[in-house]
Amino acid sequence: MTPTITGFRASPDRGRGLARDMRVRWAFEEVGQAYDVRLLSFAEMKEPAHLALQPFGQIPTYEEGDLTLFDSSAIVLHIAERHVGLLPDDANARARAITWMFAAVSTMEPTIVEREAAFFLERDEAWYEQRLTAVVGRIRNRLDQLSRHLGDAEWLDGGFSAGDLLMVSVLLRLGSSGILADYPNLAAYVARGEARPAYARAFAAQLAVFNASGAA
Amino acid sequence: MTPTITGFRASPDRGRGLARDMRVRWAFEEVGQAYDVRLLSFAEMKEPAHLALQPFGQIPTYEEGDLTLFDSSAIVLHIAERHVGLLPDDANARARAITWMFAAVSTMEPTIVEREAAFFLERDEAWYEQRLTAVVGRIRNRLDQLSRHLGDAEWLDGGFSAGDLLMVSVLLRLGSSGILADYPNLAAYVARGEARPAYARAFAAQLAVFNASGAA
Repeated sequence: MTPTITGFRASPDRGRGLARDMRVRWAFEEVGQAYDVRLLSFAEMKEPAHLALQPFGQIPTYEEGDLTLFDSSAIVLHIAERHVGLLPDDANARARAITWMFAAVSTMEPTIVEREAAFFLERDEAWYEQRLTAVVGRIRNRLDQLSRHLGDAEWLDGGFSAGDLLMVSVLLRLGSSGILADYPNLAAYVARGEARPAYARAFAAQLAVFNASGAA
Repeated sequence: MTPTITGFRASPDRGRGLARDMRVRWAFEEVGQAYDVRLLSFAEMKEPAHLALQPFGQIPTYEEGDLTLFDSSAIVLHIAERHVGLLPDDANARARAITWMFAAVSTMEPTIVEREAAFFLERDEAWYEQRLTAVVGRIRNRLDQLSRHLGDAEWLDGGFSAGDLLMVSVLLRLGSSGILADYPNLAAYVARGEARPAYARAFAAQLAVFNASGAA
């Protein structure tokens, strides 16, 4: 059975691959699993039919037969557990890869999202620059630590895993900030992720949705 | 082999059970697995020996033979996968419980942490109250959604799971804010978590560490 995920009909990131359906699309492409996408407007995301699948009114969701999941990380893990290619066979290495999945979304991502939220919600405030400087300082602290861990390695722990998929996705949110340029090994790490054929296929698919949305 | 975790020698929460080793202790107690704890000072957490186990210089870590893990959620999942009691047997229900684990730490917790961070970092600023109001509004938005999902149910999805363990732990961080009092079903949900014997044993164990620290 082909699973169905949900995505933005017109993503607010304008097809730059930062919406969270991208992570799930990338996972599907890595393991070679076909999928369908049901597109939702912002209004539809807040309607009872969607809230029954996703209590927080977000995308993506995952539906396959009787099973409905939400949360992009949980969906990526679900895909990784059922296919070859995103988690190591060795039990200890597998547990470490899952550690990096959680670290990506609960240690690294919140401070990166805080910078975006500050821009959207506080950029007209007199204290915006002061606060932005503090938030960026916290992001840099985390990047210092991640950069030191990665060193010259290609991926976070052995071969490419779902942990890298999520960490690269999180770091991509730094986008045009220029912050990543100060961390050459992390910039190269992100570039390695983007260079994967599965990433490219997923990126093209989500961009095609945006371009067809009429919002382009 | 008895696993060893790390915890604060003198927790900054003064033994209120909010440090992240509490989540792992609770998981161990739920499944009846004995564990050892290695206590660390703040200085020791930033030393190379600990950074080799935990790249972000935090607690807890998990060591068992050749395996080292970090991130409390990943450790809870590791425990849950290897023992009975924290994940349902049914594969679909298990995947949904893991969805709630990620939702707790990546959808619910960041905005709750943001409120704490504002207090510690911004409370002397003229704009603190303005910003706090906005952050609390975002917390309430998430609590509205979670409360609507929970309804009259005892736990988030069927029986108690690792998803509830993490969600209750996250909501406990709202502590003395009084916010939870506006959500009777969520307050009762948290109280049900705290009333579990395993929670009580874990809470007593971490409090005993703080009381022995000399910082009490």
